[in-house]
Amino acid sequence: MRVRNKAWAEPLIEAHPELMITDPLQNKGDWQKRFKKKQPIRIEVGMGKGQFIIQMALKYPQINFIGIEIQRSVAAIALRDALEESLPNLQLVLADGADLNEYFDNGEIDRVYLNFSDPWPKKRHVKRRLTYKSFLHVYQEILVDHGVLEFKTDNQGLFEYSLVSLNNYGFVFDAVFLDLHHSEEAVENVETEYEHKFSAKGQRIYKLSGHF
Amino acid sequence: MRVRNKAWAEPLIEAHPELMITDPLQNKGDWQKRFKKKQPIRIEVGMGKGQFIIQMALKYPQINFIGIEIQRSVAAIALRDALEESLPNLQLVLADGADLNEYFDNGEIDRVYLNFSDPWPKKRHVKRRLTYKSFLHVYQEILVDHGVLEFKTDNQGLFEYSLVSLNNYGFVFDAVFLDLHHSEEAVENVETEYEHKFSAKGQRIYKLSGHF
Repeated sequence: MRVRNKAWAEPLIEAHPELMITDPLQNKGDWQKRFKKKQPIRIEVGMGKGQFIIQMALKYPQINFIGIEIQRSVAAIALRDALEESLPNLQLVLADGADLNEYFDNGEIDRVYLNFSDPWPKKRHVKRRLTYKSFLHVYQEILVDHGVLEFKTDNQGLFEYSLVSLNNYGFVFDAVFLDLHHSEEAVENVETEYEHKFSAKGQRIYKLSGHF
Repeated sequence: MRVRNKAWAEPLIEAHPELMITDPLQNKGDWQKRFKKKQPIRIEVGMGKGQFIIQMALKYPQINFIGIEIQRSVAAIALRDALEESLPNLQLVLADGADLNEYFDNGEIDRVYLNFSDPWPKKRHVKRRLTYKSFLHVYQEILVDHGVLEFKTDNQGLFEYSLVSLNNYGFVFDAVFLDLHHSEEAVENVETEYEHKFSAKGQRIYKLSGHF
C-alpha cells in the first residue's frame, strides 16, 4: 500500500519510541520486555495502517502483538491510531519483513499473520512474494515448534501460488477458506482496512491457516 | 449422478464384454492385455456418462484409459457413447471406486482423475469423500512412484476439504486453479458433461494436481 508522504509522520514516529520501534535489532530475544505481561507474541508482517493488529490487540489482551511495516507514512497512521488505544499488549515496528530473523530469536514468536501482501504477479518477482520459500524458512525459524501461520488475501493468483508454495515447503494446512466472509469463520474474522474495502465490493477473501 | 434405470442398459453391458468389464478382479496386474498397445494407464474414478474419459482417449492415443463407474444406468451411457468411437486405448469398468486396490496391482496405474465427485457435505459422511485419507492411500498404492492425481470440482466445500486432506496426507501440489476456465490451463482442459453444464452457468471450476 502506498500513501503520500505525511509531514506529521516523522515527528510522530520520533516522539513515540515506547510504541514504535525503528531499530528492532536491539530487541532480539528480548521482546517480552517491551510488553506489560509476558505472554505469547504474534506478529503481522506488513500491517499497513494497522487496523487488523490494533483490533486484534483489543480483542485478545492475553496475547502480545507486534505489527511490522516498512513504509514510514503508512506505519505512522498505524502509530497514530494505536496511540488512541494505549494498549499494553501492542508494539509497532518500522522495518523490513524480509529481515525478521535479525529482529527475532528462534522460537520467539507464537504466530505469524500475513494479510493482503503484495501479490507481485510477475513471475520474475516470485521471490518477493511473502509466501516464497525463503520467507517461509524465516517464519519457521522465528516461530515456536509447530508455530502457526495465517494468511489472507483477495488475490486469486497469490492464493493459488501460496497453496502450492506452502504445501511444497512441508507446511501443514489446518483450514482453507475460499470465501472467508461467507464461511463459519466470518464471525471471528478481524478485518484489515483493505479487506473491508474489497469484501464490501463483493470480492472473495481467501484464507489459509496451518503450522510448520 | 443419478439417472433413471434404462431398459436397454443391461443388455448393452452384457453384449460388450470387450469394452465394459463387470468383474474387474480378474484383470488385476494384467490390465495391459485389455489394450492394443502397452502404454501408461490412467483411470477416472467415477466417470459418470464418460464424456471426459472418451475425449481424453481420443486426444491422447499414446495413453491407455480406464473409466470406472458404479452406477449401471450411467455407465451404460458411457458404454453406448464409447462404442461409437471404437477406441483401442479405452476400457470401461462397472465397479466401486472404493475397491481400486482389488482391481489394480501396486504401481499398475500412471495417473488418477477425480472429476466432480460427490461432495458428501455432511460431516458424518466425510469418509465417503473421494479425497478422504483412506481413498488417498488406495490411490497411492495402485499408482506408480510419484504418481499423479488430478482433481476437479465445482463444489467449494469439497475443494477446501480436499486441499487440507491431500496436504495433510503428504501429497505434493503441482498446481492449484481456483477458476480453471479463466486460467492458462483452460485451453488444455477436457470437460466432463457436468463441468460443461455448470461452468456455462458461470460457476467456478476448481482444479488441483500433484503427486504422491
